[in-house]
Amino acid sequence: MSLTVVGSIAYDAVKTPAGERERMLGGAATHFALAASFFAEVRPVGPVGDDFDEDSWRILRTRGTVTDDVEHVEGGKTFFWKGEYSANLNQRETHITDLNVFETFSPKLSQASRDADVLFLANIQPDLQLNVREQCTRARFVAMDSMDLWINIAHDSLRKVIGTVDCLILNDEELELLTEKPTTLQAAQEILSWGPKAVVAKLGKYGAALYTADGFFALPAFPLHHVTDPTGAGDTFAGGFVGYVAAHPDEEIGHELLARAMAYGTALASYNVEEFGTDRVERLTADEIQSRVADLSRMTAFTVDPVALRT
Amino acid sequence: MSLTVVGSIAYDAVKTPAGERERMLGGAATHFALAASFFAEVRPVGPVGDDFDEDSWRILRTRGTVTDDVEHVEGGKTFFWKGEYSANLNQRETHITDLNVFETFSPKLSQASRDADVLFLANIQPDLQLNVREQCTRARFVAMDSMDLWINIAHDSLRKVIGTVDCLILNDEELELLTEKPTTLQAAQEILSWGPKAVVAKLGKYGAALYTADGFFALPAFPLHHVTDPTGAGDTFAGGFVGYVAAHPDEEIGHELLARAMAYGTALASYNVEEFGTDRVERLTADEIQSRVADLSRMTAFTVDPVALRT
Repeated sequence: MSLTVVGSIAYDAVKTPAGERERMLGGAATHFALAASFFAEVRPVGPVGDDFDEDSWRILRTRGTVTDDVEHVEGGKTFFWKGEYSANLNQRETHITDLNVFETFSPKLSQASRDADVLFLANIQPDLQLNVREQCTRARFVAMDSMDLWINIAHDSLRKVIGTVDCLILNDEELELLTEKPTTLQAAQEILSWGPKAVVAKLGKYGAALYTADGFFALPAFPLHHVTDPTGAGDTFAGGFVGYVAAHPDEEIGHELLARAMAYGTALASYNVEEFGTDRVERLTADEIQSRVADLSRMTAFTVDPVALRT
Repeated sequence: MSLTVVGSIAYDAVKTPAGERERMLGGAATHFALAASFFAEVRPVGPVGDDFDEDSWRILRTRGTVTDDVEHVEGGKTFFWKGEYSANLNQRETHITDLNVFETFSPKLSQASRDADVLFLANIQPDLQLNVREQCTRARFVAMDSMDLWINIAHDSLRKVIGTVDCLILNDEELELLTEKPTTLQAAQEILSWGPKAVVAKLGKYGAALYTADGFFALPAFPLHHVTDPTGAGDTFAGGFVGYVAAHPDEEIGHELLARAMAYGTALASYNVEEFGTDRVERLTADEIQSRVADLSRMTAFTVDPVALRT
C-alpha cells in the first residue's frame, strides 16, 4: 500500500470572491498527497527551493507522507503560481507562473518510490511523466492527469504516456480536445482504445464521470453553500480516487472498485474547496470523509419503479 | 390523473452539427406533452395559426393527448423559432423569434383543463402563468419553468407566480441569477423560502439536481454517443418529471417520489436529443423508457465501504 506521486509542489497566491491569499502551500503533488494520505503511505516526488519553509514541510508530512524524494534544489526558488477566480468561480485567470526549480526538474526516484504499488503522474510535461512511469515497474495501478497546454504543444508525447497508464483523469473538455470527439462518451471510448482501462472525466462543479469497458458511472459534486477556493480540487479528487485504489491491494481493479473510489475522490474534493489551499484537508478527519461518502450515496440513490406507462 | 400544460406550440427551424431542419413541430407544450403522455392524459393549452397542419395535430395527439384547448386563431400564424447550435452544442444562437399568434395569447381553459390534478406552466410571460395557475384550483401539484428574459424584465411578476407553485424547474445559472446567490444550493434554498416545496436545477448535459426541505438529489444526464438536437430537452425532462408525479395520485409528493420522477425526466430527455424535434419521443416505447431508467440506476449506484482510513 505505497503510493508515489510526481508533480508540482508550489506556493500559490489566490484571489477568489471569498478573499485573497498572498502565499500558501499548493501544487498538484501537495493536494494529491494530503488527500491520498488517508489511504496509503504517500511519497511525493518534486522539487522545492531554498524558500520552502518548515511549516510547508510539516503540512506535506500530514498523516505520514514520506518526503524523502522531495528534492531541495540549493539556490533555487519554489514554483510559484498566482491566479484569480471569476465571481461564480467558473473561470480562472493566471497572473503569474514562475516555474523556478521546476524548469530544470528531472525526477529522481528512490528505490522505495520506484517500488510503489500505485503511481500517480500529476500534470507535468508528458516526457517527465513517461520517465517516471518507466521507473515504476512494479505498480499495479498507474493514473495520470494532464492539461490543455500539453494536448496542444506535446500531443505525441502525451499520447505515448497515456498508452502506458491504467487510468486517465482529465476535464471533459480536455478529453474532447485530446480526441477531437464531440461528446465525452466518444472521447472516453477512443482513449480506452489507446490502452487505459479507465477514463475519469472531471466535470468541475458538476462532479465526475467514470468510463470503463464495463460501463459508465457518474457522481454529482457534493452540494456546498460556499466555495472558498477551487484550487487543487482536481488533484484532491485524484488523491482520494487513486488513494482508495491503493487501499485495496487485494481487490481486482475494475468498474465497481473504481466507482467506489470516485465517491472518496468526490468527498475529499468537496472538503478541499471549503477553505483556502490545504487548510481544510490538512485537519480533515476520517469520520468526516465517511460521513460525506454516505451522504453522497443517499443523494444519488433512487428506486426503480415498475410504473405502468401509457402506450 | 389528468395533466394540463400551458405553453408554446411552435414550428422550429434548427441547425446543429448533425444537420438542419427548416420546419418541424416544436414548442415547450409540445415537447412536454409528448413526454408526459406516457404517464397521464395531457391537455396542452396554447394557440396555433392557420398554418398548423394535420400532421402536427396528429403528433400532438400521440398517446391520447387531448387537444381541445389548443386554440386555432383564425387568420393567424403559428409561433416560429429559428436557432443554431455551436459545434459542441453548449451554446445556441436565436436567429428568428416570430411570436405570431402568441403575441396576443390569453389562455382559455375548458372545465376539464381547469380540473387537472397536475399543472405545468411552461416558459411563458409570468402574468399568463399566474392567470392559468389561478384557474386551476384543484391541482395537487403545480410546477413551472421560466427563463432569463423574465428574470430580467418581469422579476416581480415572476416572484409572484413562483410563490403559488409547488416546484420551480430552472437552469442552475438562472436560479443563481434569479436569487443573486453564488451557488445553486443557496439559490435553491432561497426559493424554497418563497413557497415552493421543490426546486429542480437543470444542468444541461450534466443532468439535473433536486432540492427539497428533505435534502438534495442529483442525476447525471444519460451518456450518449451522439446528440443530434438539444431543442426541447428541458421541456421533455419536465414532461417526464411532472408526468411521473401525475401517475402517482395516491402517493405523497415528497423528496423520494420526486427523486424517482427525476429519473424518468432524465430518461425521456436523453431520448429527445437523439433525433431532431419530436421524432424520437413520438415513436418511443414504454420498454425503452424503463430500460434507460434501470440503466441510470446502475450508473449511479455504489456501495459505501467502511474502509479503515489512516489518521
